[in-house]
Amino acid sequence: MKWPEKVTIKEVGPRDGLQNEKKIIPSETKIGWIDSLSETGLSYIEVTSFVNPKWIPQLADSLKVAEGIHRKPGVTYAALVPNLKGLEGALHAKMDEIAVFMSASEGHNRKNINKSIHDTYPVLQETVNLALQEGKKVRGYLSTVFGCPYEGKVPAAQVLSICERLFEMGIEELSLGDTIGIANPRQVEEILEQCLKTFKGARFALHFHDTRGMALANILKALEMGFDTFDSALGGLGGCPYAPGASGNVATDDLVHMLEKMGIDTGINQDKLLDAGYFLQQKMQSKLPSHQMAVYNAAKA
Amino acid sequence: MKWPEKVTIKEVGPRDGLQNEKKIIPSETKIGWIDSLSETGLSYIEVTSFVNPKWIPQLADSLKVAEGIHRKPGVTYAALVPNLKGLEGALHAKMDEIAVFMSASEGHNRKNINKSIHDTYPVLQETVNLALQEGKKVRGYLSTVFGCPYEGKVPAAQVLSICERLFEMGIEELSLGDTIGIANPRQVEEILEQCLKTFKGARFALHFHDTRGMALANILKALEMGFDTFDSALGGLGGCPYAPGASGNVATDDLVHMLEKMGIDTGINQDKLLDAGYFLQQKMQSKLPSHQMAVYNAAKA
Repeated sequence: MKWPEKVTIKEVGPRDGLQNEKKIIPSETKIGWIDSLSETGLSYIEVTSFVNPKWIPQLADSLKVAEGIHRKPGVTYAALVPNLKGLEGALHAKMDEIAVFMSASEGHNRKNINKSIHDTYPVLQETVNLALQEGKKVRGYLSTVFGCPYEGKVPAAQVLSICERLFEMGIEELSLGDTIGIANPRQVEEILEQCLKTFKGARFALHFHDTRGMALANILKALEMGFDTFDSALGGLGGCPYAPGASGNVATDDLVHMLEKMGIDTGINQDKLLDAGYFLQQKMQSKLPSHQMAVYNAAKA
Repeated sequence: MKWPEKVTIKEVGPRDGLQNEKKIIPSETKIGWIDSLSETGLSYIEVTSFVNPKWIPQLADSLKVAEGIHRKPGVTYAALVPNLKGLEGALHAKMDEIAVFMSASEGHNRKNINKSIHDTYPVLQETVNLALQEGKKVRGYLSTVFGCPYEGKVPAAQVLSICERLFEMGIEELSLGDTIGIANPRQVEEILEQCLKTFKGARFALHFHDTRGMALANILKALEMGFDTFDSALGGLGGCPYAPGASGNVATDDLVHMLEKMGIDTGINQDKLLDAGYFLQQKMQSKLPSHQMAVYNAAKA
């Protein structure tokens, strides 16, 4: 099987990246950064998350950020919401798209959502219902698909059964997450083969963290199987809460670079992407961990 | 095509890694580090290089290191040599195996060896001849196969023609180098397909640098094509002289981790590998840049 000609990259740095950074970034910096991301050619930016600021103080300014950014026509601005209350915030902030989330493993779901998998379904269902009623597309995130920090391996049957429930709810696209960056290409092939077989024509995205450096290899494997939508965070922003010091999401700049070198169109301007990374570095006064930013910083020094 | 069951990893950190480090490491540290590498299950360690210390002062102590290390039975201890003089040093030091090198591009060959490609052949031929006469296997490195810092793209026909000359010389295994870490999986597939077609049954190794984060993806592609020998440096030691601040060789620990997770046998004990990395970190008083070492350091902190 050959690689797709075109790939969609969904930038999750302002949400998944920043929520894993220790530092709290001023709203003005976030807004400036998101505005610079909007100029890169990215078609989808997950701007923030409407969750209880008690749990994620890094994103406590979600409304301010969502209202402060310039909405570039053609770009989808999305937000993560855990429940109806979060959705109300996102609707109030006029987000284009909503994302809900749960985990494929009981242990991580309980730790992250404070509910069993079984008890999570009705919360997501009412959230998806209202979002659809309000004319919003809903994206689903399924975490710990390739491994759980508390339970280790997650049975494929369990992953498939949760995927089914989420699609039934009316979710448009399901992002399969390697939350702790533990997936390897053989496992990616095994699980994705089952997903393709079970859900013909369904829309999946892949969400890899680069904790152990395998994210691009995993993406290569997924590309070869025909997957064409990937989540990433500019500069590899955000660490891993289960391995402090390790990498966060796969870096948008490293991913775009590899794809474009392979002749796969992302629609993204790499120079503008690196400039957006440089902007954030200057504001945060720290280096972003991606390979492209390292090369860029070296050239600039 | 499926992945091989077993892979051979050739550790080049003590040579390729250290020669790109700015700091000069004391011989005792190198010896202690190589001795710890010998305990990991690695079957091949490139210990040093017998070159003019004027060019590579980091490896000026090659004889001392080669004579100081404990030679573990079953492990091949190799050294890089540029010419007859270097070979004499390596023979004097009783190295098990020799490696010679040249570049696939004129520009890099002239810069690195101070000779045209044409004028390099006789120098390597006399070196290989004597090495073979002395009962040593000879490995060849071909640099800039996937791109040159001075010339950009290198024509595949030129790569193939140099490979042919090197095999004709009596080289046992040819390591194709992505010297500046610029190869992408599509290009790897294209070039390796031609190598397989042109040199049936020949022994190739792949030598990737991780400058732009694509090394493991490139290795995955090569694995799928049946290649089973890879060069790497523990911890991703060594930077890139053409992009200061960027990564060096693909990290042995990240590579072994990925392969073992995929069920591919490397014969290497990962805990011992990380301990060897930790030893070097402590001595160098700086962190190694690999993903596995980051996770290890975080767990240790």
